[in-house]
Amino acid sequence: MTVRNLRLTVAFRGAPYHGWQIQKRLPTVQGILTEALERIAGEKISLIGSGRTDAGTHARALVANFRTHSRIAPRDLQRALNSALPEDIRILGARRVPLEFHARYSAVAKVYRYQIYRGAVLPPHLAAEHYHYPFPLDLEPMIQAAALVVGRRDFRSFARTPQGGSRSEQTSTVRRVLGAELRRAGRRLLFTIEADGFLHHMVRNIAGTLLEVGRGRFSVDQFEALFDKRDRRAAGFTAPARGLILIRVRY
Amino acid sequence: MTVRNLRLTVAFRGAPYHGWQIQKRLPTVQGILTEALERIAGEKISLIGSGRTDAGTHARALVANFRTHSRIAPRDLQRALNSALPEDIRILGARRVPLEFHARYSAVAKVYRYQIYRGAVLPPHLAAEHYHYPFPLDLEPMIQAAALVVGRRDFRSFARTPQGGSRSEQTSTVRRVLGAELRRAGRRLLFTIEADGFLHHMVRNIAGTLLEVGRGRFSVDQFEALFDKRDRRAAGFTAPARGLILIRVRY
Repeated sequence: MTVRNLRLTVAFRGAPYHGWQIQKRLPTVQGILTEALERIAGEKISLIGSGRTDAGTHARALVANFRTHSRIAPRDLQRALNSALPEDIRILGARRVPLEFHARYSAVAKVYRYQIYRGAVLPPHLAAEHYHYPFPLDLEPMIQAAALVVGRRDFRSFARTPQGGSRSEQTSTVRRVLGAELRRAGRRLLFTIEADGFLHHMVRNIAGTLLEVGRGRFSVDQFEALFDKRDRRAAGFTAPARGLILIRVRY
Repeated sequence: MTVRNLRLTVAFRGAPYHGWQIQKRLPTVQGILTEALERIAGEKISLIGSGRTDAGTHARALVANFRTHSRIAPRDLQRALNSALPEDIRILGARRVPLEFHARYSAVAKVYRYQIYRGAVLPPHLAAEHYHYPFPLDLEPMIQAAALVVGRRDFRSFARTPQGGSRSEQTSTVRRVLGAELRRAGRRLLFTIEADGFLHHMVRNIAGTLLEVGRGRFSVDQFEALFDKRDRRAAGFTAPARGLILIRVRY
């Protein structure tokens, strides 16, 4: 029996789910998707995602893959999944890929966007995907600081410290950021970042720290100095998950 | 005791509500807002809206007004309302206006937008405010037909027929459309229309009929001829409420 490797592109709304990663007794996208796949394929499925996402974080195009003995055509699988899944999880694409393709290990980069709304009142149609931050901000230093994130850097100051102790020295917290930009779009602030990998809470911690740059708690130089401190407590707050969107995964 | 007239600008998500207009035992925006106002002002409030909206229709900036003996400052009222209201109803502005101002009778025009998503799969972040129409469409005649709506015309063919009989001849179905445009934005189609007034279901019926022009059921000439027919059954289907947004009200 031939084994095939199928790749899925998945979009979802973050609010109803406890993130991507399967968890007992909690609704997660990987959990719901695996169940639907197993029903359609009629066999146990081990679904590999491009990476975890925080509870409440959205995805425009997360990538997943799985091996199957089922001979269902990818197009039919996509249609069957979209019929079975709730409307806030959608399969945007499905195709056969070489057996070596691995959604997590084959990924070369991911793009995230963090969205902030600055107006006094958050309009209801933006509420699902924006963090409301109606306080005065000095944008110029924020824009400069955002650009400093680019390059091969140690993001330990921006990584969530594992529960129950400090991060093991063996686990590298160095990541290569390929692009980072903060831009203004009307009353919105959009922070886009592309990297070869992300530490837990990394984008949300950078976004929170950039907001504190805008508030004057950190100068641009002080922001830059945070990289050398390698201490989560030195940097700013963790911006809420609802403003964070996984935009795409590159292979 | 001085009576003051206060004007509110209200935005809301359509899905949770049975439209603006107060109804017994159904959640409506006017109902919820009136309750909150009465609690804050400590008196009976008669809240006047710029007009009804269909159940499920969204508003970016509906206008309402009410008279009150309360001496609360508009800014404080806005803040108190936004604390009391659910997150999907927001007061974007509040100010004192002359006693003659009437949200409905003083309005000179309203702008609505109808949003369609044409791609094969509706992305979750667009689901709340787009009608999913993944069928092939010929856009050129749709764009031409949309422009024909402009002017002082009889929209009886595009108005919902009142239940239990035909519309009385006394009730005018003539409206003046100041602007109407269908434009493509990626995989979205946006139909914007500004008029001095709208009949019940008028925008949704025009949008549905434009889609049938795109499907080839009506030519541009046949679409134009619908105005003279003055018969709802001659025109196309009623596009769903979820794609419709009240954008603004002009005074």
